Amino acid sequence: MKEENLWCLKENGYDPGLHKHYEGLFTQGNGYMHVRGSFEEGCSDAPQDEEYLRFPDNVTLEKPRHPKSKQGTFIPGIVGRHPLLKEEIVNLPYYLGVEFLSAGERLDMDLCRISGYQRWLDLRDGSLHRSVVWETAEGMKIHCTFIRYLSMADTHLCIQQVQLEVLSGEGSLEVKATLRADVRTNGMNHYARIVPSADSEGSLSLETITEEGNQIFMLSALEVSEAVTWHAENTRMMAALRGECRLRAGDRLTLSKLTTVTTDRDMEEGTVRDRALAHLSHARNLGWEQLYNRHAAKWKSKWQHADIRIKGDDAAQVNVRASLYHLIRSNAEQDARVAICAKGYAGEAYFGRYFWDTEINLLPFFLHTNPQAARNLLLFRYNTLEGARRNARNYGYRGARYAWESSLSGEEQCANWQYADHEIHITADVVYALYHYVNATGDEEFLERYGIDILVETARYWCDRVDWNREGYGELLGVMGPDEYLPFTRNNAFTNRMVKFSLEQTVACLDSLQSGKPDSYAAAAERLGLRPDERELFRHTAEKLRLPYDSRMEIVPQSDDFAHYADVEFESLWTDRSRPFGHFISQERNYRSKALKQADVLELMLLFPQEFPREQLKAAYAYYEPITTHDSSLSVAVHGIVASWLNHKEEAEAFLQRVMAIDFSPEKKGAAEGIHIANCGGLWQLIVYGFAGLASAMWSGTIKLQPRLPEGWEELSFQIVWRGEHYRITVNSGAYEVQKLNGGEAVAGTTI
Amino acid sequence: MKEENLWCLKENGYDPGLHKHYEGLFTQGNGYMHVRGSFEEGCSDAPQDEEYLRFPDNVTLEKPRHPKSKQGTFIPGIVGRHPLLKEEIVNLPYYLGVEFLSAGERLDMDLCRISGYQRWLDLRDGSLHRSVVWETAEGMKIHCTFIRYLSMADTHLCIQQVQLEVLSGEGSLEVKATLRADVRTNGMNHYARIVPSADSEGSLSLETITEEGNQIFMLSALEVSEAVTWHAENTRMMAALRGECRLRAGDRLTLSKLTTVTTDRDMEEGTVRDRALAHLSHARNLGWEQLYNRHAAKWKSKWQHADIRIKGDDAAQVNVRASLYHLIRSNAEQDARVAICAKGYAGEAYFGRYFWDTEINLLPFFLHTNPQAARNLLLFRYNTLEGARRNARNYGYRGARYAWESSLSGEEQCANWQYADHEIHITADVVYALYHYVNATGDEEFLERYGIDILVETARYWCDRVDWNREGYGELLGVMGPDEYLPFTRNNAFTNRMVKFSLEQTVACLDSLQSGKPDSYAAAAERLGLRPDERELFRHTAEKLRLPYDSRMEIVPQSDDFAHYADVEFESLWTDRSRPFGHFISQERNYRSKALKQADVLELMLLFPQEFPREQLKAAYAYYEPITTHDSSLSVAVHGIVASWLNHKEEAEAFLQRVMAIDFSPEKKGAAEGIHIANCGGLWQLIVYGFAGLASAMWSGTIKLQPRLPEGWEELSFQIVWRGEHYRITVNSGAYEVQKLNGGEAVAGTTI
Repeated sequence: MKEENLWCLKENGYDPGLHKHYEGLFTQGNGYMHVRGSFEEGCSDAPQDEEYLRFPDNVTLEKPRHPKSKQGTFIPGIVGRHPLLKEEIVNLPYYLGVEFLSAGERLDMDLCRISGYQRWLDLRDGSLHRSVVWETAEGMKIHCTFIRYLSMADTHLCIQQVQLEVLSGEGSLEVKATLRADVRTNGMNHYARIVPSADSEGSLSLETITEEGNQIFMLSALEVSEAVTWHAENTRMMAALRGECRLRAGDRLTLSKLTTVTTDRDMEEGTVRDRALAHLSHARNLGWEQLYNRHAAKWKSKWQHADIRIKGDDAAQVNVRASLYHLIRSNAEQDARVAICAKGYAGEAYFGRYFWDTEINLLPFFLHTNPQAARNLLLFRYNTLEGARRNARNYGYRGARYAWESSLSGEEQCANWQYADHEIHITADVVYALYHYVNATGDEEFLERYGIDILVETARYWCDRVDWNREGYGELLGVMGPDEYLPFTRNNAFTNRMVKFSLEQTVACLDSLQSGKPDSYAAAAERLGLRPDERELFRHTAEKLRLPYDSRMEIVPQSDDFAHYADVEFESLWTDRSRPFGHFISQERNYRSKALKQADVLELMLLFPQEFPREQLKAAYAYYEPITTHDSSLSVAVHGIVASWLNHKEEAEAFLQRVMAIDFSPEKKGAAEGIHIANCGGLWQLIVYGFAGLASAMWSGTIKLQPRLPEGWEELSFQIVWRGEHYRITVNSGAYEVQKLNGGEAVAGTTI
Repeated sequence: MKEENLWCLKENGYDPGLHKHYEGLFTQGNGYMHVRGSFEEGCSDAPQDEEYLRFPDNVTLEKPRHPKSKQGTFIPGIVGRHPLLKEEIVNLPYYLGVEFLSAGERLDMDLCRISGYQRWLDLRDGSLHRSVVWETAEGMKIHCTFIRYLSMADTHLCIQQVQLEVLSGEGSLEVKATLRADVRTNGMNHYARIVPSADSEGSLSLETITEEGNQIFMLSALEVSEAVTWHAENTRMMAALRGECRLRAGDRLTLSKLTTVTTDRDMEEGTVRDRALAHLSHARNLGWEQLYNRHAAKWKSKWQHADIRIKGDDAAQVNVRASLYHLIRSNAEQDARVAICAKGYAGEAYFGRYFWDTEINLLPFFLHTNPQAARNLLLFRYNTLEGARRNARNYGYRGARYAWESSLSGEEQCANWQYADHEIHITADVVYALYHYVNATGDEEFLERYGIDILVETARYWCDRVDWNREGYGELLGVMGPDEYLPFTRNNAFTNRMVKFSLEQTVACLDSLQSGKPDSYAAAAERLGLRPDERELFRHTAEKLRLPYDSRMEIVPQSDDFAHYADVEFESLWTDRSRPFGHFISQERNYRSKALKQADVLELMLLFPQEFPREQLKAAYAYYEPITTHDSSLSVAVHGIVASWLNHKEEAEAFLQRVMAIDFSPEKKGAAEGIHIANCGGLWQLIVYGFAGLASAMWSGTIKLQPRLPEGWEELSFQIVWRGEHYRITVNSGAYEVQKLNGGEAVAGTTI
């Protein structure tokens, strides 16, 4: 395959049933804003403004609306309230609109005579390309080319270019450029006020005020190669300019649409309108080429740190890059008021909320490719500590309890109580991530400035949440572990271990701060109202918290009561393995059965690898994998890593394929509702922790590798940042090399 | 106290904060329809048409709307769909409306100058009386008397009479009679079409068509003692007639409003309008006196069977009669398409749905006072078997699964999955009730005609619902027992015992039918598609179903996992015992704690008294009562009975007071959202099973008594029907007598 093709995610052929999948997969973004990969002109039979009441439901089982197409324009931080679903990210007005009409026939990919269709996302610069020949009813043959990108350098800007080349015939052509507010989010209208405007100079604007009071200003400037007179055709919901020209064979019409978007949440001075005008003028001063060069340079620099090169497996190469692409664009980098939502801002599902994926699935990628971004993800948790405090209070506890589903404030947004109430491990996951960050970067100061507050407040919560049994051991009852198919277990191994870790670290941090930085300790103690006896309580709770396993057990049980759940006859129940197991069993039955949604004990072993003998890991994999349904997208990457560690090469490779299929298989249409961004992080981990066998920076002070490459992979290479130093890691089928990039010796070894 | 006063439920004094409580408590009804005890003229600051979206919530914890007043007009069987709450009984248009204006001043109990207020419900005939002196702003003093009743003989009729006597002053008075459709049910508008009509002859009508297509026709005829000219003043929502007259001291104005209500669900021929006209004309032909006499005779006959006479405790006497009154009026008697809803059709709470209370709490009263009504309650379950089959299918099971919350079809209506999915004992409760009915009445034919279908279909469900453990025992996992504060237990003792009973009876019934009535057996086997091996499966499952207790245990555990829940420090948490414990603890914490909402093991012991040695009963009471919050109204009566059985006299008497306080204490305002009808049934059981010590007809073939009267009760007497024979039971402090009423010998004994 040509090097270029290894950077292009292509749509193969044309299938109207896949519009929604590719809309998700081709989502473009630059951290500041994100737009799904919809056709500029839309689909005439897929209205975007259907209003309905969406109910809280199990996302795995729910039948999504909008079967054909759903546009999506998201700015992290612009959220609205839904009466049933709580806070959701608002799907903003659609600013990509460009429509064409030939003698009354509207260009519509599904209704017109179309040939030579090609579409691809260029992962190098995040530009989306479409090329198609439109044979109009009137008899013209027009080659249409669409290119667009969201600037990674000037993040308020979207650049679009459309070129129409008349191959044969002649006729008049109408062009319509729009900014459309006829968009609903999960059936809900979040717009309180819409002010469209357009002038004949080719300038369009749409000012939107949401019910929550956020202002969003969109401003587009049109440039067209032919002499076109623009007429405003605004409606209540839409700013629109229409122009007309006459074309004949050989003619080329080029339309550029430069759009700038500002909101009242931007960290800039001035009104949304003034700033939009400034951004636009800045862009025009730069010119198209400069604009593009700045953008491409940013992407290049990001790829320099993030890219993973795989020789010998071109399909994996493209998919891995596409996965990295979504990780890169999802991160706001400079803005610690938001994190990365579960669908990578590529769809309305999960309502733009932040889960434990951030800490456990996404963070390692950022730790080792962009530590500043990783730091901001942790700062987000620090910034939402007040919301976590309110959560604890709402349940009657002291301290801070992170939300199972967080939005901006950190307050619980999950509308299904079994998750919100019982999936408590998130609060410990944040602490694990905090230490992962500190250990990977060496940024000890972060602990002292921010981490200590998180540690003490969450420790207080845990001490209230623990019940003491008659033998004097602390227990965590009524817990949903990572496996969401058991909502109400006793002493979930994963959760209890994480909580024990979290409490131990709190004590250790207080100890070391007190002895090492007494002033800083005194300030924290005062700020947090630390009572003299509290540290002892944390220590005692850490020490006495029950773990439902020990090193002599053959099988580490998922929880103390796991043996009491019912065995499942998967063969007779799960008659179509291409669909989730959850479709074949009622929740009632599922909740009392030994059918795991996802890795639970294995996730524990992944996070604490040094604590489990290889035999225990092997036994756990052999026992749990067959009863794990992998209905969650957080599951297969974990299993792939463990399979790789156990040197079950074929299984590890099969898991690699399953990881990639989650979003990239057109059969699964997995990206339709957004990108499974945790799984993108999981793919990075599968390659780095699994195939390259990098020891987690959580537990290893130095770079240690134990590579086991999949069959056919000739070479795997990638960069990592490790405690501030940059390294290139190269793994061949027989050997590996770790090269320090800013000077220093290379380390080498052999591959398993 | 005068005999008359022992039949009158009185409002003491006047307190605007108690309107809603008395509206519930003074609900009138006749089986066909029910109307809350609102003032005829309404309260001007309590609109009835507020629209809002009510969310599924815990009824104990939810803050009800309409703090001041909520009218309620209910016809069992007229239901509508709510987008979140599923099917709910529709609050129908308010047909009692009569308003008075004096020189523009509208009679409003809270805004006008009012004195001499008295209101009482005469329990003998269910008539509601109000007497009040209105001193108008213009200076008139008017003595107003309101009387109304819903005819127990002519159930489509409501009779109202208002008399105004001018004590002093003079002036003009406007009278307005209305039929108002500005009524919402839990914030929801269920009316699709409203047609008001009125004519100057004093006739008013309102035709309503609900969203579900039900027709309700209300027709009123006014008669007035003075010459009044009626003017129609209809609005879109209301039929209204207004008239005016001039009055002076000594004048009396009498207004009668005779209203007939018909619906398309009535089991009568003809259109709603024609039938309403016929009912009205029938009533007019009878005349006021005859109408009343027919009504009063019906009530008298009902009281003859149902009354409980208590000498020596007048307060209990009135409350017990009020409780019996609500039981009597709630029952539709002739209509097995409906049962008795949880709030006794006296409010919108619980949405007019049917729970297990019907079988366990209400049925005994009807079994022994009105066996035909009891039979219809069981027929209702037979009639909804198809819905129960659909429920089973929806969960992936064979057979029939009764809904935790049933409406007309029997399909599950409960919007909170923890109850709907896990509180499965209802399906066995129906079978228990079936046998209770057969044993109490001797109606074996019922089993053969209807019961067998319920038995076989529910047995099939149980066989699918049971999980088999590795020791070869059947288990019921993921179960909420009667105690709704533990949603997810393993082998709940109550549930498993009930299911075992249910399966055993199914096998026994099939055995006896096959040998005793082979034709009937063959027909049932064919109708039910009974496979040859099924009976053996039922037998095996019944035999091997695990019970988490045996007769040697000191404490019967509520479930196999009960010991693993956390102990609760009630003292520190429950700081105000006048409010439910549930207000002081989060659901999350509650669900993992040993805090019972209600009787669970004790309920089991009440239903299977012969199976538990007295020491076990005593130990269970001693252990469970202190950790039972009695947050459910199904709890205190059970505890009272057990306390009485254990001869804990003071505690039994204290529970009697708590039972009565649930609806009758103005401090608690317990009747505001409707009557706790299960607790009314519980009060009957407390007196009959507890204080009189009657052995349940479920287990005893003959009448056996072991009375223990509360302190101060000189004599307790009541009638019961027992296997078709009527008996009068009289208990004195030292002795009791059972007198067969249709001939036969009296049996006597001594009281404990």
